[in-house]
Amino acid sequence: MIKVGVLGARGKVGTEVCRAVEAADDLELVAQIDVGDELDALVSSGAEAVVDFTHPDAVMDNLEFCIDHGIHAVVGTTGFDQQRLDTLRGWLENQPRTGVLIAPNFSIGAILMMRFATLAAPFYESVEVVEMHHPTKADAPSGTARRTAELIAAARREAGLGPVPDATSTGLEGARGATVDGIHVHGLRVRGMVAHQEVLFGGVGETLTIRHDSLDRVSFTPGVLAGLRAIADHPGLTVGLENFLHID
Amino acid sequence: MIKVGVLGARGKVGTEVCRAVEAADDLELVAQIDVGDELDALVSSGAEAVVDFTHPDAVMDNLEFCIDHGIHAVVGTTGFDQQRLDTLRGWLENQPRTGVLIAPNFSIGAILMMRFATLAAPFYESVEVVEMHHPTKADAPSGTARRTAELIAAARREAGLGPVPDATSTGLEGARGATVDGIHVHGLRVRGMVAHQEVLFGGVGETLTIRHDSLDRVSFTPGVLAGLRAIADHPGLTVGLENFLHID
Amino acid sequence: MIKVGVLGARGKVGTEVCRAVEAADDLELVAQIDVGDELDALVSSGAEAVVDFTHPDAVMDNLEFCIDHGIHAVVGTTGFDQQRLDTLRGWLENQPRTGVLIAPNFSIGAILMMRFATLAAPFYESVEVVEMHHPTKADAPSGTARRTAELIAAARREAGLGPVPDATSTGLEGARGATVDGIHVHGLRVRGMVAHQEVLFGGVGETLTIRHDSLDRVSFTPGVLAGLRAIADHPGLTVGLENFLHID
Amino acid sequence: MIKVGVLGARGKVGTEVCRAVEAADDLELVAQIDVGDELDALVSSGAEAVVDFTHPDAVMDNLEFCIDHGIHAVVGTTGFDQQRLDTLRGWLENQPRTGVLIAPNFSIGAILMMRFATLAAPFYESVEVVEMHHPTKADAPSGTARRTAELIAAARREAGLGPVPDATSTGLEGARGATVDGIHVHGLRVRGMVAHQEVLFGGVGETLTIRHDSLDRVSFTPGVLAGLRAIADHPGLTVGLENFLHID
Repeated sequence: MIKVGVLGARGKVGTEVCRAVEAADDLELVAQIDVGDELDALVSSGAEAVVDFTHPDAVMDNLEFCIDHGIHAVVGTTGFDQQRLDTLRGWLENQPRTGVLIAPNFSIGAILMMRFATLAAPFYESVEVVEMHHPTKADAPSGTARRTAELIAAARREAGLGPVPDATSTGLEGARGATVDGIHVHGLRVRGMVAHQEVLFGGVGETLTIRHDSLDRVSFTPGVLAGLRAIADHPGLTVGLENFLHID
Repeated sequence: MIKVGVLGARGKVGTEVCRAVEAADDLELVAQIDVGDELDALVSSGAEAVVDFTHPDAVMDNLEFCIDHGIHAVVGTTGFDQQRLDTLRGWLENQPRTGVLIAPNFSIGAILMMRFATLAAPFYESVEVVEMHHPTKADAPSGTARRTAELIAAARREAGLGPVPDATSTGLEGARGATVDGIHVHGLRVRGMVAHQEVLFGGVGETLTIRHDSLDRVSFTPGVLAGLRAIADHPGLTVGLENFLHID
Repeated sequence: MIKVGVLGARGKVGTEVCRAVEAADDLELVAQIDVGDELDALVSSGAEAVVDFTHPDAVMDNLEFCIDHGIHAVVGTTGFDQQRLDTLRGWLENQPRTGVLIAPNFSIGAILMMRFATLAAPFYESVEVVEMHHPTKADAPSGTARRTAELIAAARREAGLGPVPDATSTGLEGARGATVDGIHVHGLRVRGMVAHQEVLFGGVGETLTIRHDSLDRVSFTPGVLAGLRAIADHPGLTVGLENFLHID
Repeated sequence: MIKVGVLGARGKVGTEVCRAVEAADDLELVAQIDVGDELDALVSSGAEAVVDFTHPDAVMDNLEFCIDHGIHAVVGTTGFDQQRLDTLRGWLENQPRTGVLIAPNFSIGAILMMRFATLAAPFYESVEVVEMHHPTKADAPSGTARRTAELIAAARREAGLGPVPDATSTGLEGARGATVDGIHVHGLRVRGMVAHQEVLFGGVGETLTIRHDSLDRVSFTPGVLAGLRAIADHPGLTVGLENFLHID
């Protein structure tokens, strides 16, 4: 049983994390902390690891406290730049057995999709990325689609592949989507959809499609639990949950 | 048994048409005509109907001959404008029992897809069109995708629906595709693909997808045969195979 | 503004119906009734139409009351057999302007899918049905999949089509799914899925796919609202929401 | 330039191989051999590697000749059992620099699909396999679907996962497909389709789908060329093209 504290426990995401930790046989929820609560409760409750889904303004103080007390941290809060990561590394030097995981994406499906897209990229002449989201999303294409395209483009370059074939000479503006590092990316906005992405690879006579459908916001919780279970074995700073998954 | 002549019989498309007519139990291939052959063979062979996949330069002479001799015509040749259609109507006035079908698209699947998209359009807040073709295609989006978007837009207007919801405020140019009458259309170009289209409708909590996959150029032959079987019952000029199919 | 009462207002489904009625500009929620509440509140509140998602044991009393008072009813409660429908018809004879809609399925997407499948069936040699649901579902295949297969089989018979082609001579038991009226139906049970169905049609060189994805239980509410808006124009008993939608 | 000979050069598959070798910049087609031709032409033409798509009755003689003469072989002919593989290993001992690749499947897409399915399996509670083929196929499910299910089942066992969740208690026989090592596998037979497979993984709130579409028989040629390019670097016997692809 790993004793877990949740920071941001009353937020939308934190509430789901608390529920998932309580439902897991090998995890025990010992502290639920939100704005106004004292971090000392983490120590008094004996928390071995925390999950932090709070705010960029609060997360560094939280992590300094945790590292000082040798409590591992699995962090989904955003806003980490190079300077913040360096600060964390400095703090962790004094606590060589403590681990911090900073993850922009806890969806195991999204991580697998990006990994498989990278692995498949060298074998196919053509590739395009299509992401589909609810129509209240402000940005297009999605961050995951951009990241996927960058990973594919890098894998193609390394394999010595040239540009994707495209004979389009006439048409309507935007018909071929946006391009990210030379990869065409298309964003759909459809009521009823949540968060979906397809990567289509094509070669002579065949296509390979990798598709991830996130139908519910709780889809990130298995990734958080995977992080909690692995964090004690990964002291120091880790960026990206993919480093904890043994995908290869 | 309907006696059928094929004009353009040695072309790529004509060859497939000849093969399909020969394979059909209720059709008899009595004349195969191409550049340099005499049209009189249609009369001497007793052809009741012809299929014309020739060239814009040849098709009007072919049709004048057929109409003069009371031979029905199923025409896939391109290049018909309003003037040509009026000319055909004039010729047909003198032959009130003869039928001519001009069809830009003989794919029954594409016709059904467009029909269903039109029928579904009034019921959904969101809709987008995605077409996928081989990367040697010159235009984007495809003509079928444009036509589908126009039909959907008209059905939405008639139903009193406003613009599709889209909160995109930031992103990359082209990410949201091209717009045709306010409908977003996305064109993918992928090696290994032939001709594919998806229409995605979405409302609160659900989506409806209509997809057509054309995997082989022979996919147009069932539509040509359907045209041959129905043409005798449709004297005069008909534009569009959908008028022969009882879809409703 | 149509004044609406909801019976079963505190149930899971009823709660969503109340929410949807309140959110609609042209509907007013005037009564929320559940076990223990008096039906008289429908009269005193001036309800013109009710939605009933209650229980087979309660629904007939509810409907007798509504019909007696000239209140239209849109009913999603299950358990209607021929005898119950006949009873309703008898009651409605005395109230010739009152309408009752009994609908086993309020999902507009599912209704459109079944309608399109019926329309497409005569044009394709092959067809199969695949349904996908969460793994806690007790029956396989789903009722909607069975109904879809029956509709397709009937449409094929009417069009004079024979059995679907299938050369399978060796294999594992169950590999080709269940058959309903000669149509192969496959049921998948996958964690994370909600309720999804695909109908695949195939002919020479092409396929046509109609897919419905229900991602959230609220997907039935647009159908309920459509029923409420149309019920006053459909006096007497109607079975099936499809009769209110102008799909053709 | 690798000098290539093709055995079975006038067969359907061999013809495509010849065409693909001729079209490749780094390969030279120096010998086309079929029934009745002398194998000596391989030596006189200077062939460095051969492709063998012949017959189980002919392939062992072909391979003995090639190994004797230090010619590498890429083999798609079927019928290799343990005894034949042992015989090949014996012959190769005397030619330590010669390589033979025996591959039941040259489709890179199918190989990637199986590999990704194996990698994803440990992360998902649910998984099902759906294969779709033309209706003249004799066996169901396909060999690739069976193999995929076996690989997934092994990966689940290794990860300590139990049986897939399935609450089905009532239904029609066959509705849940066949089971291979506890994995549900569904086979569809649809006119117009060629060879397609989908692997669907599902966990709480999300699904991951890996799909391979083979639309044309030429889809195996890139795998054959990949085999030819790598064979000189893999002396001895290799079974399975996946060993030549650097997928991880």
